[in-house]
Amino acid sequence: MDITTKFSDKVKHLEASAIREIFKLLAKPGIISFAGGAPDPELFPKKEFAELAKEILEKDGNTALQYGITEGYAPLRTWVKNRLVSQGVLKDTDDVIIGSGGQQGIDLATKSLINPGEGIVCEEPSFIGGLNCFRSYNAELYGVPVLDDGIDTEALEETLKAHKNIKVLYTISTFQNPSGITISLEKRKKILELAEKYDFLIYEDNPYGELRFEGEEIPTLKSMDKAGRVIYFGSFSKILAPGMRLGFVSAPAPLLERMIICKQTEDVHTNVLSQMIAYEFVTRYSIDDHIKKLRAAYGKKCRLMMDAMDKYFPAEVKHTCPEGGLFLFCTLPVGFDSKELMKKALERNVAFVPGTSCMIDDKATYNTFRMNYSTASEEDIEKGIKALGEVIYEFLGK
Amino acid sequence: MDITTKFSDKVKHLEASAIREIFKLLAKPGIISFAGGAPDPELFPKKEFAELAKEILEKDGNTALQYGITEGYAPLRTWVKNRLVSQGVLKDTDDVIIGSGGQQGIDLATKSLINPGEGIVCEEPSFIGGLNCFRSYNAELYGVPVLDDGIDTEALEETLKAHKNIKVLYTISTFQNPSGITISLEKRKKILELAEKYDFLIYEDNPYGELRFEGEEIPTLKSMDKAGRVIYFGSFSKILAPGMRLGFVSAPAPLLERMIICKQTEDVHTNVLSQMIAYEFVTRYSIDDHIKKLRAAYGKKCRLMMDAMDKYFPAEVKHTCPEGGLFLFCTLPVGFDSKELMKKALERNVAFVPGTSCMIDDKATYNTFRMNYSTASEEDIEKGIKALGEVIYEFLGK
Repeated sequence: MDITTKFSDKVKHLEASAIREIFKLLAKPGIISFAGGAPDPELFPKKEFAELAKEILEKDGNTALQYGITEGYAPLRTWVKNRLVSQGVLKDTDDVIIGSGGQQGIDLATKSLINPGEGIVCEEPSFIGGLNCFRSYNAELYGVPVLDDGIDTEALEETLKAHKNIKVLYTISTFQNPSGITISLEKRKKILELAEKYDFLIYEDNPYGELRFEGEEIPTLKSMDKAGRVIYFGSFSKILAPGMRLGFVSAPAPLLERMIICKQTEDVHTNVLSQMIAYEFVTRYSIDDHIKKLRAAYGKKCRLMMDAMDKYFPAEVKHTCPEGGLFLFCTLPVGFDSKELMKKALERNVAFVPGTSCMIDDKATYNTFRMNYSTASEEDIEKGIKALGEVIYEFLGK
Repeated sequence: MDITTKFSDKVKHLEASAIREIFKLLAKPGIISFAGGAPDPELFPKKEFAELAKEILEKDGNTALQYGITEGYAPLRTWVKNRLVSQGVLKDTDDVIIGSGGQQGIDLATKSLINPGEGIVCEEPSFIGGLNCFRSYNAELYGVPVLDDGIDTEALEETLKAHKNIKVLYTISTFQNPSGITISLEKRKKILELAEKYDFLIYEDNPYGELRFEGEEIPTLKSMDKAGRVIYFGSFSKILAPGMRLGFVSAPAPLLERMIICKQTEDVHTNVLSQMIAYEFVTRYSIDDHIKKLRAAYGKKCRLMMDAMDKYFPAEVKHTCPEGGLFLFCTLPVGFDSKELMKKALERNVAFVPGTSCMIDDKATYNTFRMNYSTASEEDIEKGIKALGEVIYEFLGK
């Protein structure tokens, strides 16, 4: 029997995440990869986690290993909520649930909100995991360019005028993946105005917000949201460890309730041991001190990468200058295909993510690429950018 | 803004799992609950897990805490596959992926296969988590009664004749939840014949199969499947610990590939630390010895519960006699509503799951209820059944 004849309309058209496919190539020994989006594993609090895991399993293994609550491990849920309230992101009346990574929040919200053919506006470039999630629910995707101060709000309004089926705007408001760009305060206000005017919801995906190493904090869209239009996604992946698969969502209560029902049918609840480890870590140790360490390390690596690019890349290759997060975004001169560059780079044992993986029309050709500076060692950043510079010089025929 | 006006058609009609809502009532101190489906926490290998977790985080924390592979931690995946091959469930050419619990496999398969309005035949009674998952994709559900030797295959054929939209049969083939009943070998053959004749797929959900404490093994549907129609779901929840959220699926390769893409958009990958703990446990210790212990304990508890029922319940109340698994199913005389009985029982600090939670039409009235014997202590089984017997005598007006 040919199983492919049985596929649902939701998955017929889906393709594997190009980024995750690239990851498979990276098993090649000796490769320096700027392709991932992974935190620096040297900064994982491994020793603390090892002690905590042992203690939790010995003292409260019956809780850690038994079925848990769909909404999340109650102490962790409360801790997350209180932290977001103290940061001004949430009001005291808001609620939070824990998910299996930030990704699950996006999935549950989309399942709960989007009918096939309904529209989601995405920043272009954007996060492949978001785009593919929306595709898996047969959403219609509309791209709006990202400028230096965030999404082009004029183009956004044009898009909203042109398409009456738009239900959601998806934005990674701070240190965007892949561009590293942060939406300015004025634009945030404008976006909320447009949401009222055109009656849409906002997914504010903020996994990197805590990783600011330069500049001033800007209030989240969620903190300025008076109408209950913003669904806020956060994550422990970048501030603790992604392998734990811990994220959180805040949304209007009736939506959270639907999302919980969907989570029951999706994975029943989130891994309990990891929730307990995270909770014990954030309460026994200073999460702010830990984040301070991350900020310093990533700030240093980011500057190192930008300095190396300025030294080894042709002047025509531009890059963004992020104030936080894990990524910067490069642009080749017009007409050069970063996918082709990727092939040449892989031959020289350097990898990045071609812009095409971050675009709605992923069949077209783009002259952009994403560079991650968090995973590679400082030494490899220098070495890898030098090698990539040589590849680019050749590629541009210089 | 009223968020409920924005809900998708998928979730508008969904209701929270009544079972999980019941769980919230059970926080009441002193309650004896036969409502859950949880393994006995005293049998969790806590000490071993504590040592393993510590060792893994200390020695290989970079792997345990970093992003992992969507398909699952490779050594665990291989181990699961080899075990299923050695049990005769899979062929050597079959493949397996790890999911966040058995539930996620059911969700990913359904997302990949079911369009709104397509039909899924379910055993009645069946597992609420399965039913709700299908509902969340707007499947049309058709119920077929479970007889003493499994699903009524004549009624199944009538259903298949009457409804041309049926794409999947969902069966918990062995020690069914909630009935405890196992499908006979002849019926398994018949089901596979019908699948060919009426061109449908089979979800064989087998989380309890390893927990046989009496009678002879019966080959899985998957092991007899020549046409590639069976999608097989397994779980570590009942043989190790549910809080880890570890399950597995085997399906035809093109379907597995779609499911992996869906998993990327759902939770990226399964918790790595738990996969590593499970792998180290099953390779360093004897999983078969561990399962032997579980079988003995659950067999003893099941007999204890049946004996207590025979002693304390009115003779008109019937129960199934499972040869394994975690549940048995009781039937009150015709006309008595087990939901009403549940209210009375809760007043007396005893809980179970009313049959209505296991039925497609969950608004109707049923005289059945599910009893779990794995979670409560032996002492509580005796005490709880005695109390429940008194409630039933009163309820039946005797």
